[in-house]
Amino acid sequence: MYQFIENGTVTSVQGFKAAGIHCGLKKKKPDLALIYSEVPCNAAGTFTLNKVKAAPILISQKIIQKKNQVRAILVNSGNANACTGEQGHKDAIEIQEHCAKILELKPNEVLVSSTGVIGQPIPVDKIIHGINEIKDSLTSSGGHDAAEAIMTTDLREKSFALKIKLTGGEVRIGGICKGSGMIMPNMATMLAFITTDANIEQALLQEMLLHAVNKTFNKITVDGDTSTNDMVILLANGLSGISVKKDSVDYNLFLKGLNLISEEMAKSIIVDGEGATKLIRVTVHNAKTSSDADTIAKSIANSPLVKTALNGADANWGRIISAAGKSGADFDPLNTMIYFDELPIMLAGYKIVIDEVKAAEILNRDNFSISLDLNEGNFSSTWWTCDFSQEYIKINANYRT
Amino acid sequence: MYQFIENGTVTSVQGFKAAGIHCGLKKKKPDLALIYSEVPCNAAGTFTLNKVKAAPILISQKIIQKKNQVRAILVNSGNANACTGEQGHKDAIEIQEHCAKILELKPNEVLVSSTGVIGQPIPVDKIIHGINEIKDSLTSSGGHDAAEAIMTTDLREKSFALKIKLTGGEVRIGGICKGSGMIMPNMATMLAFITTDANIEQALLQEMLLHAVNKTFNKITVDGDTSTNDMVILLANGLSGISVKKDSVDYNLFLKGLNLISEEMAKSIIVDGEGATKLIRVTVHNAKTSSDADTIAKSIANSPLVKTALNGADANWGRIISAAGKSGADFDPLNTMIYFDELPIMLAGYKIVIDEVKAAEILNRDNFSISLDLNEGNFSSTWWTCDFSQEYIKINANYRT
Repeated sequence: MYQFIENGTVTSVQGFKAAGIHCGLKKKKPDLALIYSEVPCNAAGTFTLNKVKAAPILISQKIIQKKNQVRAILVNSGNANACTGEQGHKDAIEIQEHCAKILELKPNEVLVSSTGVIGQPIPVDKIIHGINEIKDSLTSSGGHDAAEAIMTTDLREKSFALKIKLTGGEVRIGGICKGSGMIMPNMATMLAFITTDANIEQALLQEMLLHAVNKTFNKITVDGDTSTNDMVILLANGLSGISVKKDSVDYNLFLKGLNLISEEMAKSIIVDGEGATKLIRVTVHNAKTSSDADTIAKSIANSPLVKTALNGADANWGRIISAAGKSGADFDPLNTMIYFDELPIMLAGYKIVIDEVKAAEILNRDNFSISLDLNEGNFSSTWWTCDFSQEYIKINANYRT
Repeated sequence: MYQFIENGTVTSVQGFKAAGIHCGLKKKKPDLALIYSEVPCNAAGTFTLNKVKAAPILISQKIIQKKNQVRAILVNSGNANACTGEQGHKDAIEIQEHCAKILELKPNEVLVSSTGVIGQPIPVDKIIHGINEIKDSLTSSGGHDAAEAIMTTDLREKSFALKIKLTGGEVRIGGICKGSGMIMPNMATMLAFITTDANIEQALLQEMLLHAVNKTFNKITVDGDTSTNDMVILLANGLSGISVKKDSVDYNLFLKGLNLISEEMAKSIIVDGEGATKLIRVTVHNAKTSSDADTIAKSIANSPLVKTALNGADANWGRIISAAGKSGADFDPLNTMIYFDELPIMLAGYKIVIDEVKAAEILNRDNFSISLDLNEGNFSSTWWTCDFSQEYIKINANYRT
């Protein structure tokens, strides 16, 4: 039903081209990316909830809210165009309009996105010059170049693509993203761009994206921060000829596929988190409400004390139950059981059954899960996090200088 | 009006004795403290909001809620008696009852408190043995010994005392506390014990303590955690013969004094925070509501990105405004101004006026302030925090082992 495509990316989906080039915002590395669709796309998007929103966020958000069809996404790294006031807004408009002109599109068909240092005027001339060049670099295998050009402190390019068998035939979803910091306001944060050749009307596309983002991109944390530039965009160009309608079998199949690729993308961001050495899945089962499950999982995933203990492979169940207790969620810790992968650590009534040797063996892996069973209801929630290492402090103490 | 007493502590207040001894919970260091009043005290207290509450928290909280008069506080370090289930509760009762017997008091006149490793049965025999001994060590200069005996990873003993001139004469407030970690569920957290010879009825005492705690102990953060064992206790023995009544001049004078000493105690915990190298005051001025001011100040004080930047003396105003923006509080960042001490960094409209040399000079001090002026209303809030150092990670990655 679902098959990840080896070496897949946004351009593994028919009708999409992409490119990544160097335009001079960074010293040497690629810093300008373009994703382009041969035909108009329905477009969905989610944007940062931070009150401080970068100029390109405001511009792209408006296009999505107006349900305009979209043909291209222009992304630069190296400068976030955030906290740049009125001039920053004018600059972003100028960049958007020039890109539209070069691609022979209307400005409202071009989404813009930026990531990098904040509070610095964006060098419009360099980007304008880059736009003139990048059009000729567009290819139907350019997704990886684009993925590289949106990186900031990321160590690895992040590209994925998935085939889905629907009742009417095969559709594809491709995606690129960047993160690595899970929010560095200074370099601005998490970006994800997803393409599909399924034919899905805008309102439904937006609904599905929100659903997937809430289960994946919104459940990861490196340091609990939310940047000025976060965005996730999903473009559907319909070129597969296969339509996905509300409440159909294909709706569920497609949504599950969208969740799958979004989860892989989100996890790739955690794995590449600043100083991260481990990917940890935190799941809370059998809570009274969905919100209780989520609040507890988030509190554990965000606790510096839990994250530092995991860095040291210390089976510190006390910090885990205490992080749950301080979350404000409604539960009785006397009913709670804690597991590392399948290994029981604490049973109801604070009964500690930890096998320290086996626990250490699990915590020394680079990928494991912490589960809490609250024994109180039917709701669950999963978050992903990483450990907190000395390397994280080193990166962030001297970032700007 | 207010004068801190050099080398002051809980026993700088008439009628209070204290002691600190070694009873064997720790290898060598003092681990059992007793604070004792010659006459019955009105008692106020605030306790952790963590759902996971240690046994002594539950016992002492009940005494305060019943408005019982109190004669003694017995505190051990080295074991938190948290997550120890029914047996832990029985153990705490046994300890309390034995202490009452030795001091010839009723059990309800003895508050109990523990801090240390959680999830381990508390060695009752060692503490019983210690109680038999500690009575004879009680002296009217024993506050410093008690302060030392409640330490866990604290590097310094924390003792304070203050003289206040009220209209009717002088009263005193003394206090000892421990923290250093600002919450380590494993070593259990923040404890503060405050004594006074003012005569204040219980309901008013409780009201004043809540007020002071909300402005001081509840406004500090090392890592945003809340432990299973936090408590602040205030005992008033009335031996000065001076009464403080609601809505009097003396009420305001005493409350200000209580705030003063609580602030010094709270700051001493931050300064001694794990790996902390700097004490940072975060103040938000001119918010629309008190809650908006508080939410923003807390978000900045708790942001790992801000705290790591401050560790590196990086004048990263972008992380500060972004931490404000992500807080969920209602404000328009376009109106916001940022200062380091008196130095303007950002004016309204994201106008950056930073003098990098002067800013670095401030951030390299071990004590400075970050202020935001929101220019929107009349409400303000102050938090205290410390920087996040590599040392913090080192301490917490290998704490339990």
